[in-house]
Amino acid sequence: MAKYMSMETLKFLLHDVHNVSELFDYDYFSEYDKDAVDILLDSTKDLADKAFYPYLREMDEQPAKYENGSIVVHPALGQMIKGYADLGLISGIFNYDDGGMQMPGMLLSSCNHIFDSANNSCIGYMGLTAGAANLIATFGSPELKNKFIPKMMTAEWMGTMCLTEPQAGSSLSDVTTSATPRDDGSYQIKGQKIFISAGDHQFADNIIHLVLARIDGAPAGTKGISLLAVPKKMPQNDGSLIPNDVITGGDFQKLGQKGYCTAHIIFGENDGCRGFLVGEAHKGLKYMFQLMNEARIAVGITGTSIATAAYYASLQYANERPQGRRIQNSGKKDVSAEQTLIINHPDVRRMLLLQKSIIEASLSLIFECSKAADIHRAADKEKAERYHLLLELLTPIVKTYPSEMGITSINNGLQILGGYGFTTDFPLQQYYRDIRICAIYEGTTGIQSLDLLGRKVPMKNGKALQILLEEIQGTMAAASTFNDLKPYVKDLASKLEMTQKILGHLMPYAMKGEYDRYLMDASLFMEFTSTVIIAWQWLKIATSSKQALVSGKTEYSAEFYESKIHTMKFFYKYELPKTLGLMDTLLDEQVLTIPEESKVTF
Amino acid sequence: MAKYMSMETLKFLLHDVHNVSELFDYDYFSEYDKDAVDILLDSTKDLADKAFYPYLREMDEQPAKYENGSIVVHPALGQMIKGYADLGLISGIFNYDDGGMQMPGMLLSSCNHIFDSANNSCIGYMGLTAGAANLIATFGSPELKNKFIPKMMTAEWMGTMCLTEPQAGSSLSDVTTSATPRDDGSYQIKGQKIFISAGDHQFADNIIHLVLARIDGAPAGTKGISLLAVPKKMPQNDGSLIPNDVITGGDFQKLGQKGYCTAHIIFGENDGCRGFLVGEAHKGLKYMFQLMNEARIAVGITGTSIATAAYYASLQYANERPQGRRIQNSGKKDVSAEQTLIINHPDVRRMLLLQKSIIEASLSLIFECSKAADIHRAADKEKAERYHLLLELLTPIVKTYPSEMGITSINNGLQILGGYGFTTDFPLQQYYRDIRICAIYEGTTGIQSLDLLGRKVPMKNGKALQILLEEIQGTMAAASTFNDLKPYVKDLASKLEMTQKILGHLMPYAMKGEYDRYLMDASLFMEFTSTVIIAWQWLKIATSSKQALVSGKTEYSAEFYESKIHTMKFFYKYELPKTLGLMDTLLDEQVLTIPEESKVTF
Repeated sequence: MAKYMSMETLKFLLHDVHNVSELFDYDYFSEYDKDAVDILLDSTKDLADKAFYPYLREMDEQPAKYENGSIVVHPALGQMIKGYADLGLISGIFNYDDGGMQMPGMLLSSCNHIFDSANNSCIGYMGLTAGAANLIATFGSPELKNKFIPKMMTAEWMGTMCLTEPQAGSSLSDVTTSATPRDDGSYQIKGQKIFISAGDHQFADNIIHLVLARIDGAPAGTKGISLLAVPKKMPQNDGSLIPNDVITGGDFQKLGQKGYCTAHIIFGENDGCRGFLVGEAHKGLKYMFQLMNEARIAVGITGTSIATAAYYASLQYANERPQGRRIQNSGKKDVSAEQTLIINHPDVRRMLLLQKSIIEASLSLIFECSKAADIHRAADKEKAERYHLLLELLTPIVKTYPSEMGITSINNGLQILGGYGFTTDFPLQQYYRDIRICAIYEGTTGIQSLDLLGRKVPMKNGKALQILLEEIQGTMAAASTFNDLKPYVKDLASKLEMTQKILGHLMPYAMKGEYDRYLMDASLFMEFTSTVIIAWQWLKIATSSKQALVSGKTEYSAEFYESKIHTMKFFYKYELPKTLGLMDTLLDEQVLTIPEESKVTF
Repeated sequence: MAKYMSMETLKFLLHDVHNVSELFDYDYFSEYDKDAVDILLDSTKDLADKAFYPYLREMDEQPAKYENGSIVVHPALGQMIKGYADLGLISGIFNYDDGGMQMPGMLLSSCNHIFDSANNSCIGYMGLTAGAANLIATFGSPELKNKFIPKMMTAEWMGTMCLTEPQAGSSLSDVTTSATPRDDGSYQIKGQKIFISAGDHQFADNIIHLVLARIDGAPAGTKGISLLAVPKKMPQNDGSLIPNDVITGGDFQKLGQKGYCTAHIIFGENDGCRGFLVGEAHKGLKYMFQLMNEARIAVGITGTSIATAAYYASLQYANERPQGRRIQNSGKKDVSAEQTLIINHPDVRRMLLLQKSIIEASLSLIFECSKAADIHRAADKEKAERYHLLLELLTPIVKTYPSEMGITSINNGLQILGGYGFTTDFPLQQYYRDIRICAIYEGTTGIQSLDLLGRKVPMKNGKALQILLEEIQGTMAAASTFNDLKPYVKDLASKLEMTQKILGHLMPYAMKGEYDRYLMDASLFMEFTSTVIIAWQWLKIATSSKQALVSGKTEYSAEFYESKIHTMKFFYKYELPKTLGLMDTLLDEQVLTIPEESKVTF
């Protein structure tokens, strides 16, 4: 079997760089230890090898399809769902009290990275089920929890999130699906939702849709949105299921992730659809954001994982394909010599290192975020609040960087294969298609960028940003104990100063009430900031590696640690300087993209 | 019909910015005038509307396929070939003496841009036929010319170029296809070629393959390569055709350009394949580079054109789709207001302007190169040599920039559509797939970059670079007559200084004989240089626009001209600053990608 991810790098990042064992000191996670973690990771890899990876190509070539009013997905999905549930991963995130495994999110993220690297069309089915059930667990009544959660934890029933409507797209203010109160306390639901991932398939007895809708008379905009649990089939007291007027209208055909169905769902076309309010009325969007934020990290994992699989596919090719000869110092080639492996061409090495520098630091950032979420769950109030704010700030970045730079990464992987990369004989072209959705899922890059600059940076008078700075400074202090790393500490410090300079330039616009101008180049600010954040992750990785080398750790080879330091240097040389151009643009006074000031004929 | 390219912008660039009429002063092109040009362009657009664009999606969904030893392509290709030949475009490039139309390359490039924007899977069939026939016309014996060219000009017979072999890929030194002299003066051919575009289909009575091969006893490396014309069927004296042991082994299935077949061709498996030497023995690679250089410009046209079609598709969506509301200066949104069209969101405008800034300047650069080729053909020796050197230097750039930045452009176009961009309901996902081959065709970006820095920059002691500088300075002088443009002249001048600084840093490595180090970051040098070249094109376009506004020209609206100037400003603000980071990396002393010095474990 081809290598599609690195267990060594995963474990190194989890245990050494991000020290998952710190979590085990909290009561909440005290049942876990390193062995338990490693056993689950190894079981996950085993399942991914056997039940996920072998269907990667088939699920692309035999996409989910709409037939006779239902969506049919690849038959192998059944065993994937079962295997995932059997490992306890759907119930992983739940408290013991709710029948869950109270598992660290860092561990769940690790497992999902393995599965997503093996076959990225599958984990969404399970992740949405867990997320939807967790939303009911957090905000639902005891009755609602009893009704849905037990069956969802075993994946007999599965779940979705239903936000997007045809006329509204990303604009949730314009959701029009209606919920009309009934005498029995439930609601009559009517409306259409599109782009519903995992919205219909043959491997669940029931699907519980978590739907954003407006209760009759609700105020306009997002303040009038409520969250309703709407089952595809209504459970009866005797345990039987009867249809609930939830109709599958179609399945979108897509560029990639073709095994992952994308449904059009019609609720209550025959006025026979009932749903249950989750929590209080009009608070639906706030509730949904629990799931949305989890889903944003999940998208980051997917982007990272597809790019990881692509990296190893391109690496294998580079290690096996002889072509051309090294350029001699004379500038000539010795054509009588054997051809060299293409991994020996500097430009191929550059493209490999670029990929490595993107994917490994992306995974590191995922652990940074998952750990913050775990501490938020487990720690005392003050510490929990600190890590909650850090997570809030990092969420748009962990969603965006692996999605956007994952495209760049795979683009370079495909290029390494030359003409073969464009053919369906190799998986690069599939990864190139599959990853493209990540920059769109759960809020496009433009929306994430507005969230970062417009909401997260100013949040609580910049407190989240302050916490982030302290975290980065902690890494810089640790790195500074090594002379070799000092130049990189200095480099990162200069990037922090540049960040201050940019914010010093932008903030006055916000203060003057010129919000449109403040946010005009939010996407560039996102690119700038996420590049700096990834540089921080690389300094963290390099510091751990250096510590291991100095202390003579032998868990991994010296070459392994040296390679991490080498890749850090690569990132600082080849990627971090992008910030120079971005700063130049961000400090420029010209207004070219705001309609009134830019009377351009397109 | 959806708009897929702009005739206005095309004609403005051709007539006003690049002044095609200057060519008509040469004897060689004296039969042409503005009217003749515009009539042909309009006829081309008409044919593209009727016979090309309507099959864009079908040719993607019903790819070329291999059946019973032959490749079958979409049936609509037949009328496209006929229409193209009937317009005189295959014979366009040939001298009157060879039965051609002695057409300016600028005009042919314009027509190909229109066709490629309409449907990018088609023009390769005709372009390769014209290119192959032109190679025979330039280097072949009168007998060979008579044998092949007349039938190729009418597209009854078509042509290909056969370079790549399975074991050699881009490394032409390792070509092993053999040519054994026969008593009758022809050669017996044996070998396999892959990735042969237009290599087999049902719409040509015969296909003339131009094959790189080694005559028995030839020296190793590229110095032992000869060029042979190998017909699929051997023409007999009575005009009949008999099979020539040229077997189609298969058709590669690809990520995109699925209507454009990609054959595996086996020559002489039964020892019955004959070919004809073109020109002298062992000079095949030099000859082939005539066609290769034409093909590289053609790839630039294809990249530009696909990205152009994608731009207009995303623009149409942005102009029709209401979603969300403009951010008010208060930072709030008025949810009671009507939704706005997404073109009014600054980030969408940024993505549109980014596309526009890439595609229009790419087309401008194509005219810069086509005009240099035309002057090279038509002018006296000294002037011809000057423009030949300019073309040599610009060829790797005109091939690479539209291919690489075309990907970025379409990526932004797709993003504008959000979730819909990922679905097969819209053409963006097809364009995103189709363009990906351009960075691989006819020498990958890595190879183009080595060509630029390793061969073209040092060529004739930097003479080509000197000529380019003079051309750029001419544009800067013209722009400087307008006060509004002076800041951009200054900006471009600083980029030229940066270029000198980078070359001042790199050249000593070449002089010291450290060629591997000199070329280590050639791809970054390509990105740097091509960005500066595109900034030059934008200054040229803006200057023409300014001249038109000042002189009160009314051929296009004032908004049209202002929009070009606006897009120039966009490029200088958002794209040109990338050079800062690239320079930082290029000046860095660290060596991280040369194998011996970079013992990285991947």
